Amino acid sequence: MQYDKILLDHGGGGLLMNELIAHTFLPKLKNAYLDRMEDGAVFDIGGVKLCFSTDSYVVSPIFFPGGDIGSLSVHGTVNDIAVCGGIPLFLSAGFILEEGFPMDDLEKIIASMAQAAATAGVQIVTGDTKVVARGAADGIFINVSGIGLIKYKGIISPRSVMPGDKVIINGTIGDHGAAILCKRQDLGFKSEIVSDSAPLNSLVESILCASPNIHCMRDATRGGLGAIVCEIAEQSGCQIVIDERNIPVREDVRGVCEILGVDPLFLANEGKMVVFCPPEDTEKILQVMAAHKYGRAAAVVGEVGKKGRGRLLLNTVIGGARELDLPTGELVPRIC
Amino acid sequence: MQYDKILLDHGGGGLLMNELIAHTFLPKLKNAYLDRMEDGAVFDIGGVKLCFSTDSYVVSPIFFPGGDIGSLSVHGTVNDIAVCGGIPLFLSAGFILEEGFPMDDLEKIIASMAQAAATAGVQIVTGDTKVVARGAADGIFINVSGIGLIKYKGIISPRSVMPGDKVIINGTIGDHGAAILCKRQDLGFKSEIVSDSAPLNSLVESILCASPNIHCMRDATRGGLGAIVCEIAEQSGCQIVIDERNIPVREDVRGVCEILGVDPLFLANEGKMVVFCPPEDTEKILQVMAAHKYGRAAAVVGEVGKKGRGRLLLNTVIGGARELDLPTGELVPRIC
Repeated sequence: MQYDKILLDHGGGGLLMNELIAHTFLPKLKNAYLDRMEDGAVFDIGGVKLCFSTDSYVVSPIFFPGGDIGSLSVHGTVNDIAVCGGIPLFLSAGFILEEGFPMDDLEKIIASMAQAAATAGVQIVTGDTKVVARGAADGIFINVSGIGLIKYKGIISPRSVMPGDKVIINGTIGDHGAAILCKRQDLGFKSEIVSDSAPLNSLVESILCASPNIHCMRDATRGGLGAIVCEIAEQSGCQIVIDERNIPVREDVRGVCEILGVDPLFLANEGKMVVFCPPEDTEKILQVMAAHKYGRAAAVVGEVGKKGRGRLLLNTVIGGARELDLPTGELVPRIC
Repeated sequence: MQYDKILLDHGGGGLLMNELIAHTFLPKLKNAYLDRMEDGAVFDIGGVKLCFSTDSYVVSPIFFPGGDIGSLSVHGTVNDIAVCGGIPLFLSAGFILEEGFPMDDLEKIIASMAQAAATAGVQIVTGDTKVVARGAADGIFINVSGIGLIKYKGIISPRSVMPGDKVIINGTIGDHGAAILCKRQDLGFKSEIVSDSAPLNSLVESILCASPNIHCMRDATRGGLGAIVCEIAEQSGCQIVIDERNIPVREDVRGVCEILGVDPLFLANEGKMVVFCPPEDTEKILQVMAAHKYGRAAAVVGEVGKKGRGRLLLNTVIGGARELDLPTGELVPRIC
């Protein structure tokens, strides 16, 4: 179906966003890089293989347990580059500020970006600031684009995913989405859920060092683990089977999801990635993850089935199995 | 003076923006690239010299005579890379859309970006789309970041500007600002002023080919020619003398400026650049410009005086001379 106006779901990382990209963006902007529809573009300049990615951040509220729009914007772009197999090096920061935005908040956000960049080992090297009148934006929006260097020899892409590959996640899912939901809504109890927002580049570097056979990586942001695996199933043309019992979910996140009637499988993460690798490398990668700060609760959550039907099959906790569709949009708008 | 809230002028390319950068951004994000405060960052990855730049576009109205937010966003970032001496190659596009934004307008804007990218010989290789609820943004904001390859051997920077250098502009000033002003305000007459929004990369390539001695280039966007030359005077530490009589201004632009009481010297351009070069290269560069579509009305507008007092001195039409300060902000908010 075609829409004549933009809906919130067009920015939700789900079906409507993919339709917008496929029908509105790609036909006009068509080129070999963009057509891959991956987290970043990979290209060669003067014999050097680079990765380039961009993300705009509109998260609301701008301060939340475990982070803020500043740290999130650095982590998000660092992670997009990392899962392309790139070593993130240089970031840009583009600010759109609403007239009247408190200078104190801006100071905190910049400090948080600086801290996040230092921790991730990247530099913010260029920037831009625009201010719009009161009411023309909601406080602050930040775009962070980034450049990374690719040294890894393998081709990291959904197109490299093979039947038999294992699907590994580096920890509990839904933490970021649940933290934002709790902060935004008055749930009648005090939650201690904290966003998982984190830079994954050092974890990725360890993984790529441990295995020359990584087929695909993707950070499970908007749309959560569910949407990302749906997309990789479609792009790889392989069925992917996920076992719900093996997916790590914090008890308190599960509780909030039950109260609100949402599925953690489709809740956003900001420090979680899925890795697709051949079965013989699984143990090695799990060990590397378990030894890393951001991979302690790593688990094998599924495997890749045969080619032909690029869908996600979920083996549920209660023993059944059902095919999952890409959600229409995001459960929680302005999650990142 | 310090402010506790963001003002419109903090995004105006003038004094307040520079103060925001100097007091809020730089102390926290400090690094050798950002500290240069130039249009883009220049660095080396794997022995290849690259330029990286970002700009967010919030222009209002989004469609104006001579362009729209789509073409403007491509030209703006292409030009930022070009004036760093880079050959722009790859762009990213990050969209922030307001719920309810007309799909037809989005289609037109994307088509315009595609056309502008094709004309400039660059590719939009990665992107991002966020949607915010009605009232949380004004229609559409676009961030375009870009990467260019630097082959030029000279150091293009305000720090390379030398006493005796000539200041050349590639054509009439104030066209973009006047076009936006006329479109925005009901002036009681029909104006035919068209924005000068254009990609300057092929012009820059011809200039760099013609002269190995280019000291500095800068596109004269927010704050206009006046603000840009003020900044270069400050950054180079040299006095710069501009002769008002030699500055090309279209008659109709001058007329609109007189009616509205604004100075074209401080009106934004989107297809104009200043070039600083030694006097012996002036003729060559003027010839190259005059032969190019975007340089027909090129003129020498000033020269660099002695080191020591980094200020802009304007020889006025009526024969006097006065020092000009960087304007506080932009004459016209949301000009780009």
